[in-house]
Amino acid sequence: MEESLEHTRSIVRLRVRFGETDLMGIVHHVSYVTYLEVARIEWLRRRGVTYASWASGGMHLPVIELAVHYRAPARFDDELDVETTLGELRAASLRFDYRVYRVSDAPEPLLCVEGATRLAYVNDQHSLRRFTPEMNEVLRRAEIG
Amino acid sequence: MEESLEHTRSIVRLRVRFGETDLMGIVHHVSYVTYLEVARIEWLRRRGVTYASWASGGMHLPVIELAVHYRAPARFDDELDVETTLGELRAASLRFDYRVYRVSDAPEPLLCVEGATRLAYVNDQHSLRRFTPEMNEVLRRAEIG
Amino acid sequence: MEESLEHTRSIVRLRVRFGETDLMGIVHHVSYVTYLEVARIEWLRRRGVTYASWASGGMHLPVIELAVHYRAPARFDDELDVETTLGELRAASLRFDYRVYRVSDAPEPLLCVEGATRLAYVNDQHSLRRFTPEMNEVLRRAEIG
Amino acid sequence: MEESLEHTRSIVRLRVRFGETDLMGIVHHVSYVTYLEVARIEWLRRRGVTYASWASGGMHLPVIELAVHYRAPARFDDELDVETTLGELRAASLRFDYRVYRVSDAPEPLLCVEGATRLAYVNDQHSLRRFTPEMNEVLRRAEIG
Repeated sequence: MEESLEHTRSIVRLRVRFGETDLMGIVHHVSYVTYLEVARIEWLRRRGVTYASWASGGMHLPVIELAVHYRAPARFDDELDVETTLGELRAASLRFDYRVYRVSDAPEPLLCVEGATRLAYVNDQHSLRRFTPEMNEVLRRAEIG
Repeated sequence: MEESLEHTRSIVRLRVRFGETDLMGIVHHVSYVTYLEVARIEWLRRRGVTYASWASGGMHLPVIELAVHYRAPARFDDELDVETTLGELRAASLRFDYRVYRVSDAPEPLLCVEGATRLAYVNDQHSLRRFTPEMNEVLRRAEIG
Repeated sequence: MEESLEHTRSIVRLRVRFGETDLMGIVHHVSYVTYLEVARIEWLRRRGVTYASWASGGMHLPVIELAVHYRAPARFDDELDVETTLGELRAASLRFDYRVYRVSDAPEPLLCVEGATRLAYVNDQHSLRRFTPEMNEVLRRAEIG
Repeated sequence: MEESLEHTRSIVRLRVRFGETDLMGIVHHVSYVTYLEVARIEWLRRRGVTYASWASGGMHLPVIELAVHYRAPARFDDELDVETTLGELRAASLRFDYRVYRVSDAPEPLLCVEGATRLAYVNDQHSLRRFTPEMNEVLRRAEIG
């Protein structure tokens, strides 16, 4: 039976920067890949851990797979909500699922982007490692406070 | 019977910029998404068309789907070959397939990244359009001399 | 006698993103130029105006001069305070002065970067314009409650 | 008497990437700071040294001062020539001067940007060092063949 991870959902708000747009007047598609990274680092912080502390302790989570579906454009200065959920937790890798919404759209936010990233757990030598019990526990947490 | 598009393969070489690396000392995963964009614009140029001229004529090809698999890291100043092939050509969208190789690795290049992007054809109003016969012909071309 | 503009100072906090670092393990020098842009757009918002509304109304403020002095490095995940002050307001251009501090440094923040940008006021045709009385009033404002 | 360094001038050509533009339809001002970095790394390569080899040998040249004057806009797909000259060589720092031209403009290239960067020589511990005689000799070289 597959474990439900719905309780791991967190929502991070950010605002589109001027330089993240392109000559079409909309957010450049590459910028969203950065937003997903910002969101998962905040996701971890809300579980009481900074990715910076993991990285300086030799615990790295590089992206090994990335998938993005672009549904609707966002524009300069838009506020975006990036909804991040742990989608799958394996022995040495995990998958985050994302939805990016334009929050200014009433009555309900417009879905701009859906995405997923698979991250591997590697040490300073870039060797694949198995998550420790402590890491597992952190990753399965709900948002604190 | 599916059309073979193998003759559409082009290889574009580029060099990793300093600012495209991250604190792990390797190329940041977001940078590759930019490389794919650079490669498909050069791909089109080698068929006698600049994407700039298409865009100023109201023919835009925004990315609607993106998939990237990261196989091996590249580093600052590495020369990379981005191999781009038209993977599929539909009425109003197309798919490019990519392989990024580190060319300095002897005896043969190391595969760093595999990826694909689906692009839609839209006009200045962001409305979906069907490729014209002329665009179809360009997109099916082999590289020009 | 020169006008004092000290009351125009605003402080914007932001956090260093992973992709803004480089292989030296510190924030890449180019990233700070983006931080200055983020800060001056927030500076304007705190005076009740969005730069997006000015831009869509044909009032653009492109950078025409940029100067940055790098004093100390910042790192991934550091929180930075960007202090922005209107340094000079001329008929058709203005200068913002910036100081970027690492806020985590006790007992007092560490100065990482000092900078300045001169912006021109141009219309949609990129022609230089004189600030209107209304724009002048906005730009001389203190931060709104 | 001041040493002439005019013989150190090199010209590096690059092409504007799509993602380097912004919603004004022109090259974003931050992108030029990246172009200057690309240019000075190529400048060094043309003197027989890769910056990557210096960096891996503990010889780093971080930017400590940056100044840019924006004269005219460039656009997507424009070819740019970045002219780089060693402007000054001190005991532990140096200054590069740059001019960026749009090469497609006949009868003569249009000056888009003038800039300068001061770089310090530091070791892996970010401590300031004096250039070795060998580094001095490389930096004063004319472009090789």
